[in-house]
Amino acid sequence: MLPVSEAQVAVLQCVSPAASVSMPITDAQGLSLSADIASTLDSPPYDKSMMDGFAVMSADILGKPSDDPIELTVQEEIMAGQVPRSPLAPGCATRIMTGAPLPEAADAVVMLEESAAGEPRDGTTYVQLRPQNFRKGQNILPRGASMKVGDTVLRQGDALTPAVIGLLAEMGFDKVDVCPPPRVAALSTGDELVDFTAQPAAGQIRNSNGPMLAAQIRAARAIPIELGIARDNESALRNAISRGIKADILLLSGGVSAGDLDLVPGVLQSLGVRQVFHKVFLKPGKPLWFGVRDSDADRSNPTLVFGLPGNPVSSFVCFELFVRPAIRKLMGRRALHRQMLSFPLAEAYTYRGGRPVYLPAVTEESEEGPCVRVLAWRGSADLRRLAEANALIQLSQEAREYASGDSVPVLSLFED
Amino acid sequence: MLPVSEAQVAVLQCVSPAASVSMPITDAQGLSLSADIASTLDSPPYDKSMMDGFAVMSADILGKPSDDPIELTVQEEIMAGQVPRSPLAPGCATRIMTGAPLPEAADAVVMLEESAAGEPRDGTTYVQLRPQNFRKGQNILPRGASMKVGDTVLRQGDALTPAVIGLLAEMGFDKVDVCPPPRVAALSTGDELVDFTAQPAAGQIRNSNGPMLAAQIRAARAIPIELGIARDNESALRNAISRGIKADILLLSGGVSAGDLDLVPGVLQSLGVRQVFHKVFLKPGKPLWFGVRDSDADRSNPTLVFGLPGNPVSSFVCFELFVRPAIRKLMGRRALHRQMLSFPLAEAYTYRGGRPVYLPAVTEESEEGPCVRVLAWRGSADLRRLAEANALIQLSQEAREYASGDSVPVLSLFED
Repeated sequence: MLPVSEAQVAVLQCVSPAASVSMPITDAQGLSLSADIASTLDSPPYDKSMMDGFAVMSADILGKPSDDPIELTVQEEIMAGQVPRSPLAPGCATRIMTGAPLPEAADAVVMLEESAAGEPRDGTTYVQLRPQNFRKGQNILPRGASMKVGDTVLRQGDALTPAVIGLLAEMGFDKVDVCPPPRVAALSTGDELVDFTAQPAAGQIRNSNGPMLAAQIRAARAIPIELGIARDNESALRNAISRGIKADILLLSGGVSAGDLDLVPGVLQSLGVRQVFHKVFLKPGKPLWFGVRDSDADRSNPTLVFGLPGNPVSSFVCFELFVRPAIRKLMGRRALHRQMLSFPLAEAYTYRGGRPVYLPAVTEESEEGPCVRVLAWRGSADLRRLAEANALIQLSQEAREYASGDSVPVLSLFED
Repeated sequence: MLPVSEAQVAVLQCVSPAASVSMPITDAQGLSLSADIASTLDSPPYDKSMMDGFAVMSADILGKPSDDPIELTVQEEIMAGQVPRSPLAPGCATRIMTGAPLPEAADAVVMLEESAAGEPRDGTTYVQLRPQNFRKGQNILPRGASMKVGDTVLRQGDALTPAVIGLLAEMGFDKVDVCPPPRVAALSTGDELVDFTAQPAAGQIRNSNGPMLAAQIRAARAIPIELGIARDNESALRNAISRGIKADILLLSGGVSAGDLDLVPGVLQSLGVRQVFHKVFLKPGKPLWFGVRDSDADRSNPTLVFGLPGNPVSSFVCFELFVRPAIRKLMGRRALHRQMLSFPLAEAYTYRGGRPVYLPAVTEESEEGPCVRVLAWRGSADLRRLAEANALIQLSQEAREYASGDSVPVLSLFED
């Protein structure tokens, strides 16, 4: 059986980022940049005061005896959002607010706390400065300190987060090139399934995977196409799968486990879907099937077809480990996988071993710092515990008694 | 000046969850449950086999000499999704697949690996079992092990994540009661601002806060109402603010800092908005203004009015610390604040002290485990560094030289 990491590589090898489209930045939230972005401006756009105080020429300060106050003529006053009217003249100081642009020729700011009003004479205002440890350039954020015209400030594959959208707006980008979100069809298969709005008879269960997968697809910023339930017969499957393979990705739920009727792989093959792998060394999620249908002339990517196990936790985990990274690669995202950080276990945990396992878990802050708590789940049908999780703990296949405090890798389920 | 935690309390004291509405679960993704949910079913719905093998009556196994195989009549075969046709008879075993329901009277499962086909006789099939360490109940997940009818499985304030939507579907909820997302208006003020699609003249800057705040509002699952830019004169402000206070929350950006013209507070007051606090002991974000306008007869909540600082990083931080929790309380979410976990610093960092500070930062996995890296930001206008952050580090007001490895509290910016 294929290890998880090899199966992930096998999936991602079949995917290239979709052709980019230009989109208003306000519509592109959560999508990814198709190209690096170079700054269109210097930020700050001018030498900027970092203090309320007086803009001065350092030549007027340096070399003066430090005991005496230095009296300068107050030339003008610059409020935030105002531009200096004139370059600073020797012997003068300009009253300036935090964030305001320095007048030309000024090369330092003396903070308000180191100043006192001078005696006005002949309609002229004076200020007395007593700067401590004065140095040229002090209290100034130089033009371009944060970024300069031409600096690469965003990279291909960066997500359009709120801060990135703010940065693009600051630079005047009203549109950017992004990969459009893929369409992901989801089809549940099985004679035992009824719609989740129906009352199941004995031996039947509601199709919980359909709505759950649609929600996972939306959370991954792709577009769900809900195909409902197909019965376990060839014509029903062929009909539904034919529709599904028109999407960028088709998710089948059920029909791939050992105990299932073996119709799905045959129908897929007859519709031109070629198996890439079947079964992954993984718990839950071992029965995962993956194949591709080569692209029509007008499409750059093959349709990706995932046969997800019918048990909801298995299906959920396979989506997170294999489908979501494929969606993100199609969308041109640089970071394909969920962030994995190691956390100490809050409590001892015994793993009987067998396959590498992904356990529903909760990360939380304890008195000793952050930790992760395994939820007492009852196997791959236990949606109740999965619903409480904000993370999955990854344990390797070896049987092991983990002690409280042992460090384990944790996949966050938060959306980045 | 108000400490952050007291300012957060002062905001949240003005908010109650909005009246709930019934909504299809597939439309309610990201919203929060208005009431606890009790399970409508037992899960699993029947005693369930956890192995491929043979369902047996323990009375047929126990007390037999362990050296001899136990031969039982194969009564029937149950595939996944099938129901047993008959209760198990003494001396019989039923072939069963993982996940299938046990026949009545069966009370254990012997795994396939511990079985061998017997010699068929008179048209009857037999199986020979050699169970190791057999015990009654083995390899069975009992009905209701994960949840029982009536168990409280979801709580008021839980978010409708994909797994929660799956669980609700499993239980047959097609609709649930949720608090609708609030409408959040955003208005940028200032004579120095131009729309982000325009070319600024000298001394002007683009309105980056408008698109950034709209994106933060959407990320918090609220509905943005973009009011654009209002000029710094009373009639323009009164006009725009009058529209804005019809929303559930009004965000003003700019107009509250010390250096600004003092029009905004006056206009707010004349429109019935009462100041709750002005200024928070916080960096960036000190100038934050917060007030409320008491509700009209038809509304249960006052309009919340936030005067956010004009600098984009200050505005971003104030949104995350104060506005987002208010949105979440209006939406009935139980967890109001972003998860805070402590991480060791990747590198030494010197804080000169002054106010409690929130620094743009990146969490990452290092060879020694997870850590957090402070980004080299250049103050409250530095969107470039904020755009690289996935977290904010919180440091207290004291000047301190933090060493590499020192543990600091970190707010994740991922969406939970």
